[in-house]
Amino acid sequence: MLPFANDYSRGAHPKVLQALIDTNMDAQPGYGQDIYTKRAAQKIQAACEAPDAEVFFISGGTQTNQVVISNLLDGDEGVVAADSGHINFHEAGSIEYTGHKVLTLPGERGKITAKNLQSYLDDWQADENHGQMVAPGLVYISFSTELGTLYSKQELADLSQVCRQNQIPLFMDGARLGYGLMSPECDLSLADIAKYCDIFYIGGTKVGALAGEAVVFTKHNVPKRFTTKIKRQGAMLAKGRLIGVQFDALFTDNLYFKLSQHAIDLAMKLKRALKDKGYQFLIDSPTNQQFVVVTNDQLAELKKHVDLSFWEVVDDTHTAIRLVTSWSTTEQELDALIAIL
Amino acid sequence: MLPFANDYSRGAHPKVLQALIDTNMDAQPGYGQDIYTKRAAQKIQAACEAPDAEVFFISGGTQTNQVVISNLLDGDEGVVAADSGHINFHEAGSIEYTGHKVLTLPGERGKITAKNLQSYLDDWQADENHGQMVAPGLVYISFSTELGTLYSKQELADLSQVCRQNQIPLFMDGARLGYGLMSPECDLSLADIAKYCDIFYIGGTKVGALAGEAVVFTKHNVPKRFTTKIKRQGAMLAKGRLIGVQFDALFTDNLYFKLSQHAIDLAMKLKRALKDKGYQFLIDSPTNQQFVVVTNDQLAELKKHVDLSFWEVVDDTHTAIRLVTSWSTTEQELDALIAIL
Amino acid sequence: MLPFANDYSRGAHPKVLQALIDTNMDAQPGYGQDIYTKRAAQKIQAACEAPDAEVFFISGGTQTNQVVISNLLDGDEGVVAADSGHINFHEAGSIEYTGHKVLTLPGERGKITAKNLQSYLDDWQADENHGQMVAPGLVYISFSTELGTLYSKQELADLSQVCRQNQIPLFMDGARLGYGLMSPECDLSLADIAKYCDIFYIGGTKVGALAGEAVVFTKHNVPKRFTTKIKRQGAMLAKGRLIGVQFDALFTDNLYFKLSQHAIDLAMKLKRALKDKGYQFLIDSPTNQQFVVVTNDQLAELKKHVDLSFWEVVDDTHTAIRLVTSWSTTEQELDALIAIL
Amino acid sequence: MLPFANDYSRGAHPKVLQALIDTNMDAQPGYGQDIYTKRAAQKIQAACEAPDAEVFFISGGTQTNQVVISNLLDGDEGVVAADSGHINFHEAGSIEYTGHKVLTLPGERGKITAKNLQSYLDDWQADENHGQMVAPGLVYISFSTELGTLYSKQELADLSQVCRQNQIPLFMDGARLGYGLMSPECDLSLADIAKYCDIFYIGGTKVGALAGEAVVFTKHNVPKRFTTKIKRQGAMLAKGRLIGVQFDALFTDNLYFKLSQHAIDLAMKLKRALKDKGYQFLIDSPTNQQFVVVTNDQLAELKKHVDLSFWEVVDDTHTAIRLVTSWSTTEQELDALIAIL
Repeated sequence: MLPFANDYSRGAHPKVLQALIDTNMDAQPGYGQDIYTKRAAQKIQAACEAPDAEVFFISGGTQTNQVVISNLLDGDEGVVAADSGHINFHEAGSIEYTGHKVLTLPGERGKITAKNLQSYLDDWQADENHGQMVAPGLVYISFSTELGTLYSKQELADLSQVCRQNQIPLFMDGARLGYGLMSPECDLSLADIAKYCDIFYIGGTKVGALAGEAVVFTKHNVPKRFTTKIKRQGAMLAKGRLIGVQFDALFTDNLYFKLSQHAIDLAMKLKRALKDKGYQFLIDSPTNQQFVVVTNDQLAELKKHVDLSFWEVVDDTHTAIRLVTSWSTTEQELDALIAIL
Repeated sequence: MLPFANDYSRGAHPKVLQALIDTNMDAQPGYGQDIYTKRAAQKIQAACEAPDAEVFFISGGTQTNQVVISNLLDGDEGVVAADSGHINFHEAGSIEYTGHKVLTLPGERGKITAKNLQSYLDDWQADENHGQMVAPGLVYISFSTELGTLYSKQELADLSQVCRQNQIPLFMDGARLGYGLMSPECDLSLADIAKYCDIFYIGGTKVGALAGEAVVFTKHNVPKRFTTKIKRQGAMLAKGRLIGVQFDALFTDNLYFKLSQHAIDLAMKLKRALKDKGYQFLIDSPTNQQFVVVTNDQLAELKKHVDLSFWEVVDDTHTAIRLVTSWSTTEQELDALIAIL
Repeated sequence: MLPFANDYSRGAHPKVLQALIDTNMDAQPGYGQDIYTKRAAQKIQAACEAPDAEVFFISGGTQTNQVVISNLLDGDEGVVAADSGHINFHEAGSIEYTGHKVLTLPGERGKITAKNLQSYLDDWQADENHGQMVAPGLVYISFSTELGTLYSKQELADLSQVCRQNQIPLFMDGARLGYGLMSPECDLSLADIAKYCDIFYIGGTKVGALAGEAVVFTKHNVPKRFTTKIKRQGAMLAKGRLIGVQFDALFTDNLYFKLSQHAIDLAMKLKRALKDKGYQFLIDSPTNQQFVVVTNDQLAELKKHVDLSFWEVVDDTHTAIRLVTSWSTTEQELDALIAIL
Repeated sequence: MLPFANDYSRGAHPKVLQALIDTNMDAQPGYGQDIYTKRAAQKIQAACEAPDAEVFFISGGTQTNQVVISNLLDGDEGVVAADSGHINFHEAGSIEYTGHKVLTLPGERGKITAKNLQSYLDDWQADENHGQMVAPGLVYISFSTELGTLYSKQELADLSQVCRQNQIPLFMDGARLGYGLMSPECDLSLADIAKYCDIFYIGGTKVGALAGEAVVFTKHNVPKRFTTKIKRQGAMLAKGRLIGVQFDALFTDNLYFKLSQHAIDLAMKLKRALKDKGYQFLIDSPTNQQFVVVTNDQLAELKKHVDLSFWEVVDDTHTAIRLVTSWSTTEQELDALIAIL
């Protein structure tokens, strides 16, 4: 089967795996106090052009969202997100589990606009009953979004400005950050993201690592005793080195960006091929997730050869599917897919 | 420095690491639906002589305790544990985080006795105010315990009987299960544990894996939609294979037991050497953690060459320390340690 | 000022207050074990024509919703509600506080339709990713709704059927139950509600009591050790008699229904007067809340003499307001209001 | 039956009830914005000689402890309490429900000593693993304690000093504050308590009110948007006036202190009578709870005529019971009790 269902179907990039092999028998302190984790943090600070940034490593995306959001919100606050936001749908209620509401705004192609956000905050402020309502305490965006779309530099700057004017931190879920940054349509750098966001994370699980996300606090805004809080929520690995070593490798010689670029190159080739063959797209995505409309007959045929994701029913005879490339997709696999389409 | 501070200072056993290398580029479904995870579960069923057991894999010990305990307790129930229990001290309040109280019994060398448990349950039942008290809903024990001690088969059978008579499940924290089972003083088999406990876990993080614990439900007692609940608590890895592959290797050719045996052999050699040199022990431990009383001068000297754990102040001039062997300790390291002592 | 802002601006109905006076010095057991609470429960069973129903008393509406919903949901379940549902807006995130998501359906005039509910449940079932989504575990409706509207007997029967077919309990928030039942447009009896709902509550705070709601479980479906769970959530009064005595009075000689009827009679008179004067309604409400569109000039004038509730901005020059009658509204107050309008 | 089981068996003091009657039909805003609640707060500020204190009203003791403690603790913090503390035993795990651990110190006659507290805090600080432990974030004491005992002014001053030196707030549970203050052995005034404690509450439920506790923040330390947080935890009454009116009455003409004095006078008379008759006391209590050792035969006889509380088994033939006076105990009832003893 051709693996286009998601971007986490294989292990680690060979260089990442090699780093695990090379460091395996070196005895190191636990709980992220090892030298590899420290070195990874420094390399990420450098890549973000943010020498004061504070970096923490957590195993997966849902866990990262849960730990970060719950510790940044005050008791009666909720997190503002697009209705299509991952935390609102496919994380099994992990934010509510921590006692907080996800306050949804209608997403525009998966994104929150500065205008909609300001309008929401104004309405909340003006509502005479807001003392009996959940207060907006954090804004959550994803980059690339769940629909593969991107914020432009201007859009992110505008959002950031609204957040700061309202003293609400801006948090970016970067589970697919590399795939966003390497898109031909992206005009943002990692340094821009560190500048505009108060907290964000650099996804490893989907971008070359076995597991692991790097959370970056850019504004001296780490919650007090944050490692104890991570532990309390079950999110502290005894062998923190497992993630540190991998990010150390990912941020050596720009590996993170190179392997993201590989996935994007293949995704753009796929997108062109789909266009050439006359397929309709559910949404115009410039990143590694492509959302394509197929007839149900085409779908049945495709499923014989391709692992893909069902996305949604379009009409009685059409279905939208998701095809995903990753750091591990090969040119051969892509060509085989295109040949079938 | 000689690494005797804990049993999680190195990566994975070479055979475990090799399994990760060998399977790395095989595309597999996420969230524990891969073939390696399924194979690991089957091998564990076989090792437990419990073909109906249901097996789940979670990243670390604190997380496993948190996910299992919180999902087995009813709202107003708490978990009974020895006061020295890991969940009561060194897990940062992770059980209370889920809304439940840890109900402590005085530990006898780290253990709960059937008699103390029955007495506690009787008192609770007899208390006219128990409707305003947390109800005991689960019993938590660890094997080996936080003090390195072991339950005998008779002790475990007695505890199990009290639990069943009171319809309260018995849960064993097996973060160091292998080191317990391979102790010369252990008369329990893995199959015995599966028989007497309602739920237990087989620790991987401290016994040869980079991360991962295998939770075994032995009595058709898995909570409904348990994987969704794992996800909700942030404990589901996208690449569940990371743990599955490692346990598949650990339960091939008895590797789990062999590497546990190695650590125990070295620990017993260390124990004999300490006795021969006239050291006092804080507690008589038959497993891989040795608790030794040293003078503060000895401690200062030791710290120059050995990574060890402070345990507790004994008196003004003496301190108890913990020395730990593991699957990765070498004969040379042990000899070097003994030479220094 | 004329008090039309809400239905909780005064103390208790004189007969309810008299019951508190009459029983004041009678020494009784605490925590709802007093004879008045028991008598109130029996009278409610009789009024519901449900001799097996189990009745509990809780101080207020938000607390009742919180205690009931959180104890009826399994860990990974959420509660389905109309987007206009009180639990979704004006209860400060009290459901999420307990760890559960409010799953919203678009309300039709404040109501959930059986068709929309079935469609939602079908979609959830069909979604291949539902293992990573919050499962629907309870349906919440309010009667009368937050917009003053009512379910007909057919609508409630249909909803109930969908719930039962899907094995999901149906819970009715009856903070304004009396005002719903006494509406000229209501074809439901209290016995019908007990039949179609699995749990519901009879609101006292807004219908003649100082505080208190009576929760009715109609299907032998009380959570285990429910009073301990109530206590744990801080919702158990030491002097449970405070609520028991009041409901005992409310369900003596049909007082609950008579004083509800009084509020409805006045509301209908107000509605007719508003129609006669040519006012537009935001929604056609057959109960004690009337939602009227006024010009901003009219609003400014009204506010000089009337306590009313801002509801929403209609356009630049118009605002929707809410005018509410209650058991304590007098004919004189209403006439004075009408004279001003 | 003679009512000596507890101090909440009757309704409200007649003057408190009269205030409810007198204000019943006055239309007032909800949620504690009424004039009675404001007036009560002012009277409490005056009684505390703390004009800047901020006062909130909550229905009951467990709820007050829960709301206050959970909102004063940071995520990874727990509350320090004597092991006999009410929050540790008879509140059904309501603190753990909010995600926080109760960190227990051995009580000395129900009290925490400054020395024990300092020692605990020192040990925590010195523990190299405290990053994996719950941090002490609040100190909880009760006055009078669950065993009827009292802190002296010196003891409270010492505790307060330890708390401030360690930047940990001191919270006093004053469910029986009046009965403590009016004890002949008490050398503390309400103003002293406001000075030494950072937060405390003045119990109403057990001291003349139908329900209600007044929480006093004395150090400009009210959590942000505290009323929203109260609402979120289900602890906000729509008719907040119910509590405000009662405290307004209780703090008029020193009623609160007078009725506390009445209970204490009777308790001291009871204590003398018990001593005269040769009874042994489980503990020497200077307040309204008396803990007496009786033979099981005496107990069986007493139970025919007296409502009392079982306290604990002393030995095979003796039991400790609790006899409680309150604002509502009459001289006649006490004499009847003494006659029986």
